[in-house]
Amino acid sequence: MTSYAALNGETRVFIIVGDPIAQVKSPAAVTQAMNALGRNCIMVPMHVSPPDFDRFMAGVGRARNLDGIIATVPHKFAAYAHCATATHRARFLGSANIMRRTPDGGWHGDMSDGQGFVEGIRAAGCKPEGGRALLVGAGGAGSAIALALLQAGVSELAIHDEDAARLDALMERLSGVRSSAVVHAGSADPTGCTLVVNATPAGMAAGDPSPVQVDKLTPNMFVGDVIAMPASTPLIEAARRLGCPTQGGGGMFAAQLDLIRDFLLGREG
Amino acid sequence: MTSYAALNGETRVFIIVGDPIAQVKSPAAVTQAMNALGRNCIMVPMHVSPPDFDRFMAGVGRARNLDGIIATVPHKFAAYAHCATATHRARFLGSANIMRRTPDGGWHGDMSDGQGFVEGIRAAGCKPEGGRALLVGAGGAGSAIALALLQAGVSELAIHDEDAARLDALMERLSGVRSSAVVHAGSADPTGCTLVVNATPAGMAAGDPSPVQVDKLTPNMFVGDVIAMPASTPLIEAARRLGCPTQGGGGMFAAQLDLIRDFLLGREG
Repeated sequence: MTSYAALNGETRVFIIVGDPIAQVKSPAAVTQAMNALGRNCIMVPMHVSPPDFDRFMAGVGRARNLDGIIATVPHKFAAYAHCATATHRARFLGSANIMRRTPDGGWHGDMSDGQGFVEGIRAAGCKPEGGRALLVGAGGAGSAIALALLQAGVSELAIHDEDAARLDALMERLSGVRSSAVVHAGSADPTGCTLVVNATPAGMAAGDPSPVQVDKLTPNMFVGDVIAMPASTPLIEAARRLGCPTQGGGGMFAAQLDLIRDFLLGREG
Repeated sequence: MTSYAALNGETRVFIIVGDPIAQVKSPAAVTQAMNALGRNCIMVPMHVSPPDFDRFMAGVGRARNLDGIIATVPHKFAAYAHCATATHRARFLGSANIMRRTPDGGWHGDMSDGQGFVEGIRAAGCKPEGGRALLVGAGGAGSAIALALLQAGVSELAIHDEDAARLDALMERLSGVRSSAVVHAGSADPTGCTLVVNATPAGMAAGDPSPVQVDKLTPNMFVGDVIAMPASTPLIEAARRLGCPTQGGGGMFAAQLDLIRDFLLGREG
């Protein structure tokens, strides 16, 4: 079939909104995943700067054939404010990465990054149940992963963030999630952990300081990173050299693809 | 190539805005025409109701990778109001069907329907120069075709519209376009004409009264219709039975495809 031959006036439209946008993989991946179900749908990229986000959302939402939205960096918190309803985890985190129409034309939001991360490491052989995790980064991605790791059954979660106020606020909010798990402040030293996760931007740029003391990694540790570009961060490369099983940001995205598609199409649950 | 495999975060986005939208052919046709030039571009449909149009346009325009817009029924006049600059013919008609970015992020508009109609009938063998045309309908499409027919060199243009005020207003505005042509009020009777054009909605629905007295058609007349759905209106069918050369709305669209693409990409002129 010629490329784009299936595109027509009846095509249902989905968008991914981010800044930057050139790096996103969802347009082809989500479109093809939806098409595989026989749906005449397409996902197109929309490059929107933060000061323009609210006005963009208010306007584009008027399109009656726009059925869903992926919000990516830096719009996940701003996107949540446009949700009329949201899942429990999206409300807990105050952010949304996926939105679909409610019956009255508003948006229903979810935040799937944490689940995507956990499903990704499970697919790569990591069993989080009973594990001792070190999570570096208490921001948006870190918060989502912290919640998902507790829900997945880690027995201990150490969180490290140089911003003490942000770290304390997250630990406070996580305290009621699962009483059988221990949540405490950690450090960049992964000694004794079974799972090590970087949820900071450190590793995107050459020369970034390592978010984790890589000389303390041991081969029994599963090492994950949320960074998708580069596909392999220095942390992931160091872990692989040691023989650690790993997951980069690409694996986190791949693991989320079906759940994003199913949420956007209202097929989940 | 798998369908949509070329779609990615760097794809430049174009939209066609209309109500209804399901019938439009531009998404695949314009996308493929742009792709044929090696451009990573896509055109997607956007279904927007008239009360939502201005807010939609204000919002969607914030997307920095949105490079162009086709406005179709009923938004062509409202679209013109969103153009910072426009071609002479768009200003003359007060409407725009195509818009591309200006260097400072606004929109530059054009109205190509009239040229598209004329290029279509030329491709079908009609030579408008020196001809005597009957145009039925003095609305948006009719006005664009009237201007284009005068610019193409018809010697006589009879315009018929049951709304006398609308008819008079159009004739008044056309009076200065080409002084060597005679513009006057016509009737539904095509006797003596070489070109007969329906630019009204009559013929879209079964049972519509004919916009032209078909019993007065003769095989020397070229008969055109702006209606694209159905592809063959009762007027076009009657003309074909008589042996008249014809062009339906689909031909008008096909003739415009290259000029729409080139305008949207800034390649024309």
